[in-house]
Amino acid sequence: MVKKAIADLKPYTPEDTLDALKQREGLSKLVRLSANENAFGTSPRVAEALSKWGFTGANRYPDSNMTTLREAIASRLNVSADALVFGNGLDEILALLSRTLVEPGDDVIVAEPTFSEYALNAVVEGATMVDVSVDSDGVTDLASFTNAITPKTRMIWICNPNNPTGTFVSKAEIAAFMKTVPASVTVIVDEAYIDFTTVEDDPSALSLMAQFDNLVVLRTFSKAYGLANFRVGFAIVSPTLGNQLERVRLPYNLSTFTEIAATAAFQDQSFVTKTVTTVAAERKKWQQFLTDQGIAFYPSQANFIFFKVADADGLAATLLKNGYLLRSGLGDNWLRVTIGQPADNQAVQEIIAAFVK
Amino acid sequence: MVKKAIADLKPYTPEDTLDALKQREGLSKLVRLSANENAFGTSPRVAEALSKWGFTGANRYPDSNMTTLREAIASRLNVSADALVFGNGLDEILALLSRTLVEPGDDVIVAEPTFSEYALNAVVEGATMVDVSVDSDGVTDLASFTNAITPKTRMIWICNPNNPTGTFVSKAEIAAFMKTVPASVTVIVDEAYIDFTTVEDDPSALSLMAQFDNLVVLRTFSKAYGLANFRVGFAIVSPTLGNQLERVRLPYNLSTFTEIAATAAFQDQSFVTKTVTTVAAERKKWQQFLTDQGIAFYPSQANFIFFKVADADGLAATLLKNGYLLRSGLGDNWLRVTIGQPADNQAVQEIIAAFVK
Repeated sequence: MVKKAIADLKPYTPEDTLDALKQREGLSKLVRLSANENAFGTSPRVAEALSKWGFTGANRYPDSNMTTLREAIASRLNVSADALVFGNGLDEILALLSRTLVEPGDDVIVAEPTFSEYALNAVVEGATMVDVSVDSDGVTDLASFTNAITPKTRMIWICNPNNPTGTFVSKAEIAAFMKTVPASVTVIVDEAYIDFTTVEDDPSALSLMAQFDNLVVLRTFSKAYGLANFRVGFAIVSPTLGNQLERVRLPYNLSTFTEIAATAAFQDQSFVTKTVTTVAAERKKWQQFLTDQGIAFYPSQANFIFFKVADADGLAATLLKNGYLLRSGLGDNWLRVTIGQPADNQAVQEIIAAFVK
Repeated sequence: MVKKAIADLKPYTPEDTLDALKQREGLSKLVRLSANENAFGTSPRVAEALSKWGFTGANRYPDSNMTTLREAIASRLNVSADALVFGNGLDEILALLSRTLVEPGDDVIVAEPTFSEYALNAVVEGATMVDVSVDSDGVTDLASFTNAITPKTRMIWICNPNNPTGTFVSKAEIAAFMKTVPASVTVIVDEAYIDFTTVEDDPSALSLMAQFDNLVVLRTFSKAYGLANFRVGFAIVSPTLGNQLERVRLPYNLSTFTEIAATAAFQDQSFVTKTVTTVAAERKKWQQFLTDQGIAFYPSQANFIFFKVADADGLAATLLKNGYLLRSGLGDNWLRVTIGQPADNQAVQEIIAAFVK
């Protein structure tokens, strides 16, 4: 007998493995542009660091504290070491925050559409979801978020840039919004894609934490750092919340190899810069292409673009036959494409142009 | 504002890193016999398999299904592939089972003493703990478990062999107990240490699952397989429960790196056999030593022994000064020692003998 909340829960749909999909579709080549991974790989320093490690101590529990990684990040982000809580990808952080803070009967506010795991985790905790539609430009509608707050509101999720719309809200907008939020409500700004933004010099909500104790910022190694496989995300939280989350966190949730990989990736900021520069250039070309074709899309600050065609399923099937996997099922006739390598972007655009003609 | 249940929660105490502890204590050598790790390392096939992999695809999400590992285990254990649910160590499975099944106001029955994370996870879900003392031989008291069952009982944990007492209950005893448990109550047999038992040919409760739909069996790669650092555990569950757990499970909770390591370790059963044989021989010597010294202990079927002295803190401090870390804090003047390499076991025994003289 499971919890009532779980009986009707719709699970997250993970990606098929490329090999399984290739076999099923009879494809010799398949490029995944559906999972917002880093199309430009991973810093070579990761493999170097792991090779040097040599797998010694596999039989020993890892450092629960992730001391090396923690110090590297705290120092660069200029936050206190105990403001950091690490997770097995941000997936675990989402679950941990929900499990620690949300009780049955609470309200949780999210944008519609946004990353589905916020709602999944809230529903598991017995919360009621309050979905606030993005505005006509696909942007998280913070004014409507404010209007949706009630005494039952416990948690508010802001994905910034927002997945799947790719749109961005500025730090100034978040600061103004925070002033409307009661101190008892936790606001979580998920900055999984923040590295890809180019509109502001300092786009992160991190610097607002000094003003707002109920603000949490999330970061991941899965996107700009190219470490999706290794599963590392982290939250930057107030010391009080950090202490509470640590009581609930799995004591050994990250392995030594993960720590070594993430630390090496973090220290290679030039890899991140190169990725981000290429993504920004390709994103511009993508947006020009969509504009030229008269295809509706939201202006993206992330490493993906959300666009709408008359027959998204047909287009996705045609792309798949040609070896390109996009993400569907996130909105009626909308598709999400991860910005890939230049040659792949061009090939996909040519297929789209021929399809919509 | 966290959940009420969490405000007073006492966190699990993870191990310090050996390096941190060595530095703090001014030690040049330190052997950890406090975490029930495999003192005999890890199968060499793990490093071979990982080297062959070469870290390709670090930027790609792993296979959510862990297909390769799943098929290897299902085939050897002779269970259906969809009966397996993988976790980031059993820690995650404990949290997942609790989060999926336990609601505020439920009762959860555990032995006292047993592994503390069962209670931690139940308390996070708002459950009431029902602690049933082990019997005078340190054995989980299943007759008293039966007496403790009420309409509020939701979950029962049996750690077998039990951590920290090391004691074992037979499959026949578990079968008899299961007949007294209502079908709505989930019984979880945590067999993290089952590989180390030598009293029965088929010690696992796995074969009882055909009879009892409400039975769950847990296994880990952290102990006999020597992969504590890599964080892999799994549950064997009924198809119905499997489907429910999959709705809540983090979609990408294990990395490709981990899957390769666990699959390689699983395929080297001769490493496991060698470990278990050595542990059993050393365990016998340990028990003889404790008997000879007149030191109280519980008969162990695990890779550790729980024993009681007049001054456990004093003994632990003396051992630490000599480079050996044991686990204290699990019972008044009780210490838990992991069975180590023969030379270390002998050295520790000599220090104990001198201390208690």
